Amino acid sequence: MYSSETFVRVRYGETDQMGFVYYGAYAMYYEVGRVESLRQLGLTYKELEATGVLMPVLENYSKYIAPARYDENLRIITQVKERPTARIRFHYEIYNETDKLINIGETQLVFLNKKTGGPLKYPEMLSEVLDPFFSP
Amino acid sequence: MYSSETFVRVRYGETDQMGFVYYGAYAMYYEVGRVESLRQLGLTYKELEATGVLMPVLENYSKYIAPARYDENLRIITQVKERPTARIRFHYEIYNETDKLINIGETQLVFLNKKTGGPLKYPEMLSEVLDPFFSP
Amino acid sequence: MYSSETFVRVRYGETDQMGFVYYGAYAMYYEVGRVESLRQLGLTYKELEATGVLMPVLENYSKYIAPARYDENLRIITQVKERPTARIRFHYEIYNETDKLINIGETQLVFLNKKTGGPLKYPEMLSEVLDPFFSP
Amino acid sequence: MYSSETFVRVRYGETDQMGFVYYGAYAMYYEVGRVESLRQLGLTYKELEATGVLMPVLENYSKYIAPARYDENLRIITQVKERPTARIRFHYEIYNETDKLINIGETQLVFLNKKTGGPLKYPEMLSEVLDPFFSP
Repeated sequence: MYSSETFVRVRYGETDQMGFVYYGAYAMYYEVGRVESLRQLGLTYKELEATGVLMPVLENYSKYIAPARYDENLRIITQVKERPTARIRFHYEIYNETDKLINIGETQLVFLNKKTGGPLKYPEMLSEVLDPFFSP
Repeated sequence: MYSSETFVRVRYGETDQMGFVYYGAYAMYYEVGRVESLRQLGLTYKELEATGVLMPVLENYSKYIAPARYDENLRIITQVKERPTARIRFHYEIYNETDKLINIGETQLVFLNKKTGGPLKYPEMLSEVLDPFFSP
Repeated sequence: MYSSETFVRVRYGETDQMGFVYYGAYAMYYEVGRVESLRQLGLTYKELEATGVLMPVLENYSKYIAPARYDENLRIITQVKERPTARIRFHYEIYNETDKLINIGETQLVFLNKKTGGPLKYPEMLSEVLDPFFSP
Repeated sequence: MYSSETFVRVRYGETDQMGFVYYGAYAMYYEVGRVESLRQLGLTYKELEATGVLMPVLENYSKYIAPARYDENLRIITQVKERPTARIRFHYEIYNETDKLINIGETQLVFLNKKTGGPLKYPEMLSEVLDPFFSP
């Protein structure tokens, strides 16, 4: 399993008139979690895309346990629990500043060929950095 | 079961550099689906909130079947399949302009007392308009 | 001068914890104003882009006179006051449901060649529909 | 004059299908610039709001010099050039990773009493940290 930690500060524009973070803003937080978890392995999604790989989202799930509030520095734990195949699945746990678990999420993405739009196998560029975290 | 239809036009700012609608934008589309489905029953979420009821989201799920593209006038079918209790669950189907089903979603919300933050029962204002769609 | 009218309904996710529409959301409303003003002339920005024309924004200005609130059906008056050259300038007035002027804006965009990234002249596709509104 | 520096990483969801950051996303970057510039003085906007001060935006201006791209770590220089009065004006310069100036902006905000909605004077909490940067 690969697990990483990153932080995201809640912006005013991400709150809504309920006084909490809008439920739709978490997708962007998950994106930050995914992208920074890869960067910590020395890989950027930008580079991956430059090699012709797109990673559209197939499924996304969120459970909202407690609200996030303006200006909180949220801690995102991003995990890849199974070795990716033609798809990759990220799990997230988001903690607020009092270390309370406030959100759980899961996103499944697929690898696509940028030119043809067709499916791609698990890219080598990704397997090189991720495979060491999974027993053979 | 209560089923309603509404339309939402994809904005440029909702696309991303993949050329499709960003996966995080669907939460806003679902919100439009929910709000317009209630409006078609003669009830606005705004009025409901004015009576002291907040409806934060507890869970949200999205399945992305095919991409939505800029300027498409998406058709959203919003359904309440079971009579709400302390919670209400909305189901969505989103169709593109060629009538292809491109997205399926589900959101569960809870009723909260705006002042105390505590849970509320299924509000009468809502049951009055929704209950006729559920057999007793 | 070309003037057109369109409507945009405020979404919950566009409000912030102040209880008003977030100041950053107006750029999206202006986009709706521009796009719908062209559509009313029989031209879509999507088609324009398909001919290889990009229209990035060069300048944007907003004056916030009064707040917009959740669920209001805002009326946007979009105007092109001068015949476009290598640039096009849109002016907006946004009115709330009580017909109060709440926002004034202005956006200047340029025409770019999608392939080369270089500047383009005022596209014929656009001049055909817009020029009748400007005295020769 | 008070000048501060902060960084913001471009998110995928902030790009549009042109392949650049959407023009409407800069308002959020400016917000980050303002908030972090105050934090560097030991003051958070959150605390200020907690004392009953709201700071709605009166005017916003952006000049887009060159596009920002996905994943760039943008450098934002935020400046307060004149001692605030009943209003405060922030100026921004945004630089990309090659240190090219890509965006210039300016935002004017006003101080409001959260309870009454009426205007407030330049709050002492703010003048205490900002005034040392302005000659008497």
